[in-house]
Amino acid sequence: MAPGIADGILFTDQYQLTMAQLYFRRDMHEQPAQFDYFYRTNPDYGRHQAGYGVTVGLDGLLDWMGDARFGPDELDRLRLRTSSGGERLFAEDFLEWLAINGDFGGIELDAVPEGRIVHPHLPIVVARGPLAMAQILESSLLNQLNYPSLVATKASRIAESASGPVLEFGMRRGPGRGANAGARAALIGGCDFTSNVGISHEVGVDPQGTHAHSMVQAFMALGLGELEAFRAFAEVYPDNCILLVDTVDTLGSGIPNAITVFEALRDAGHDPAGVRLDSGDLAYLAVQAARRLDDAGFADVPIVLSGDLDELAIWQILSQIDDEAPRYGLDPDEVKRRLVYGVGTRLITSHGHGALDGVYKLVAMEEKGAWVPSIKVSETPAKVPIPGPNSVWRLYDERGIATVDVIAAADEHPLADEEITLHHPYLDGVTRTVRRSEISQAESLLEPAWRRGARVGPTPVIDELRARRRADLDRLDIGVRRLVNPHVYHVSLTSRLKQLQHDLVAAAHESVG
Amino acid sequence: MAPGIADGILFTDQYQLTMAQLYFRRDMHEQPAQFDYFYRTNPDYGRHQAGYGVTVGLDGLLDWMGDARFGPDELDRLRLRTSSGGERLFAEDFLEWLAINGDFGGIELDAVPEGRIVHPHLPIVVARGPLAMAQILESSLLNQLNYPSLVATKASRIAESASGPVLEFGMRRGPGRGANAGARAALIGGCDFTSNVGISHEVGVDPQGTHAHSMVQAFMALGLGELEAFRAFAEVYPDNCILLVDTVDTLGSGIPNAITVFEALRDAGHDPAGVRLDSGDLAYLAVQAARRLDDAGFADVPIVLSGDLDELAIWQILSQIDDEAPRYGLDPDEVKRRLVYGVGTRLITSHGHGALDGVYKLVAMEEKGAWVPSIKVSETPAKVPIPGPNSVWRLYDERGIATVDVIAAADEHPLADEEITLHHPYLDGVTRTVRRSEISQAESLLEPAWRRGARVGPTPVIDELRARRRADLDRLDIGVRRLVNPHVYHVSLTSRLKQLQHDLVAAAHESVG
Repeated sequence: MAPGIADGILFTDQYQLTMAQLYFRRDMHEQPAQFDYFYRTNPDYGRHQAGYGVTVGLDGLLDWMGDARFGPDELDRLRLRTSSGGERLFAEDFLEWLAINGDFGGIELDAVPEGRIVHPHLPIVVARGPLAMAQILESSLLNQLNYPSLVATKASRIAESASGPVLEFGMRRGPGRGANAGARAALIGGCDFTSNVGISHEVGVDPQGTHAHSMVQAFMALGLGELEAFRAFAEVYPDNCILLVDTVDTLGSGIPNAITVFEALRDAGHDPAGVRLDSGDLAYLAVQAARRLDDAGFADVPIVLSGDLDELAIWQILSQIDDEAPRYGLDPDEVKRRLVYGVGTRLITSHGHGALDGVYKLVAMEEKGAWVPSIKVSETPAKVPIPGPNSVWRLYDERGIATVDVIAAADEHPLADEEITLHHPYLDGVTRTVRRSEISQAESLLEPAWRRGARVGPTPVIDELRARRRADLDRLDIGVRRLVNPHVYHVSLTSRLKQLQHDLVAAAHESVG
Repeated sequence: MAPGIADGILFTDQYQLTMAQLYFRRDMHEQPAQFDYFYRTNPDYGRHQAGYGVTVGLDGLLDWMGDARFGPDELDRLRLRTSSGGERLFAEDFLEWLAINGDFGGIELDAVPEGRIVHPHLPIVVARGPLAMAQILESSLLNQLNYPSLVATKASRIAESASGPVLEFGMRRGPGRGANAGARAALIGGCDFTSNVGISHEVGVDPQGTHAHSMVQAFMALGLGELEAFRAFAEVYPDNCILLVDTVDTLGSGIPNAITVFEALRDAGHDPAGVRLDSGDLAYLAVQAARRLDDAGFADVPIVLSGDLDELAIWQILSQIDDEAPRYGLDPDEVKRRLVYGVGTRLITSHGHGALDGVYKLVAMEEKGAWVPSIKVSETPAKVPIPGPNSVWRLYDERGIATVDVIAAADEHPLADEEITLHHPYLDGVTRTVRRSEISQAESLLEPAWRRGARVGPTPVIDELRARRRADLDRLDIGVRRLVNPHVYHVSLTSRLKQLQHDLVAAAHESVG
């Protein structure tokens, strides 16, 4: 379980190393370069799409950058690699350079803080530093930002759809050790708790869990039965007694047995903590469970739902409860108020959209002390990058609602003029005009995150990250937050930046032609 | 980067710990129990489905089991947890038991060896041991088997669809550190190489990679251009020179520039290693690249394709080449023969089916020295488990092709009788009869994997695991291997086991009613 060679700086792609050696050979390796991390599209899950993203992963990336370096073990491994011609692939002088310079001490990162709402095309992390090491950073940076942001975005949507607390418990079908990063992202993105014990302890949130079918089965195998299993659970956990009622027959045995046990708990002065439904028609069963619990005087006992839940499944369940509860004389809101949601596989795998398309693109190189913007020509308009370096702003309207994110030149303030023309990031002629008087605040989004080999500021605590997401969500238009067909939130370029993008594309085509 | 609390034995779900304490309190914690790991359905990617699975992940699980234990740090963490009533959740006597017994020394595992082809309902890993520790093992076991098996299955399909070598390079959009387990699974499942440097070194396979668009861009930003970038690459890597030709304009500049550089390489006595196409109509561009390379005398230079590839995309490309190559006077087979495939996101996320539905079910408990089968009643027929303990067999027909996997009682041989009736694992009355004379071999699939706190036998080397998959694939019916609408491979129960399943379900219903 010691961290292996695969967890350190060699958690990267081979071509980063071959390119780094080439830069070394051409004396370009220490040339300052800037790479921007951004993503191009919000997750689209098929019949529903995200209107925003939540950025998560910076903390883990910075931790990794603090430790990752080309130590003796890494260099020995690289010495073993040979070319197809049988010669050593990495020359000794390059490895000597790596032995001294092969860490992230020379890199600077600015970043949109973890937990914030973000949008396509927005530079979320900006890396500046010696070309060779900035290049080597790419793969791990992408890995450590893309997946957690994907899960946090899904978690945010699930939390928005739910009428009560959401618990993450996707480890068992999660992507190997990625399940840990996924659980942390879920907690930041909107889940109240996770069942993952290690991560809960690491971030300082109470882990949550009840019991599995196997517990009831084990009692049955010993000839004891469901009721006895429930009694045993209540005896050991009188104040945390959530009973899983569907091992045998939810309405025929699970709920009646749970009520029997809850009555004993109540007599002993304890509040039962809930029942859990894990199969069948969850909306119907929730209504029936609520009825029976109400009748037994347990109107406040929570009902935990689980089983392939995601934001659409939850939405459907709540709609069905609206429909069905009145037929049994129940107030739908009273049923919904007591629901708790356990979400697993569909959250941790971001069901329907399994990867965020985040990229890390060279946007500028320093020459003779000045930044020269760089651009890749592409026939796909959406892939024409935004030249750097830039400043990144979020503009809020008079109501304090975010209305547009603006990418400007590094030394440009978006509210310099009374009338501001904003340009679509890649479609020509698509513009929008805002007046300075309509804007209540222009917030700079990028903050220094990494300087001189160390993180800037303290390691964030989870509650701070959760609060950031909630605060951003409160300032996001309700149409953008919609689960299906959300409004498109605008990310725009200033006129000056648009012109620069144009000129660079033209120049690149000219130099090629 | 030290392994944290989240990597050890607390890489589990909270309810495993609460159940373990309950078993301890009821003196059931050391009762021997058997859990079977199996999955219920092969991945279904939407318009195409897998006809088989590849089991991967056992090696990492056994490594983890060797180190994972409740040490002082873990126990201190558990002491901190409180119930809703404010009391300690885990009592000191339970923690004392964990301090002494809280490792996997008492567990025995039998398993279908890693790399083998497997099918739904087949017990792939069988765990026996004290109920409390067998229960705590569940979450991590599922996590460490489900995801790698999912990726290995996808890799096997992609390798089957491809006409040449397949390289994995999904780290950047892979699921955090899960990308390492994913890369290893891809290598076992059918990929020839991975770009993941750390994992390549760990398993002893050469990492592969070329260069990115950013290299060409960096040269362009310095006023040097694509040709100069290619020259530099060829100079540093004359024997591994694969050039990415689509940064500017694939046919207009990339291919001509590559040919210029290849000519110089040839003059210097080196064989160019290839061109890489990463965007556009890959089939069309492959044909055009082949034409131009042929014309320049480079008929053997490989063409690497990348960009959102999976088995269907590859199939489509190959069909289109069949169509298009003759129009330009090329033999399609000559084009296909030189293709190499780079596969990223869609492999490492198992695009279209992001999680294997593997479960770990209690199948038997020991009482007074005898195993008593256990069963969970379910209204969903597919979820009625197969009571244990069992033996698991693969029967091969006269051609040596696997024809059925048979689950039998532990002391039963599937070929005991001349005529064998095989039963569908959960649909009543669906049977098939085979005659002993039609069967060339009955192979027992489960092997001892873990005894007395240590793995049985040496750590497997990757080539052995890859060979297992290939050998199994060679003995699998071509219809089962089909990419779309594969034949359903039969997994069956013997009459004796079917009867037992029946009796148990009836008894469970009776005891409840």
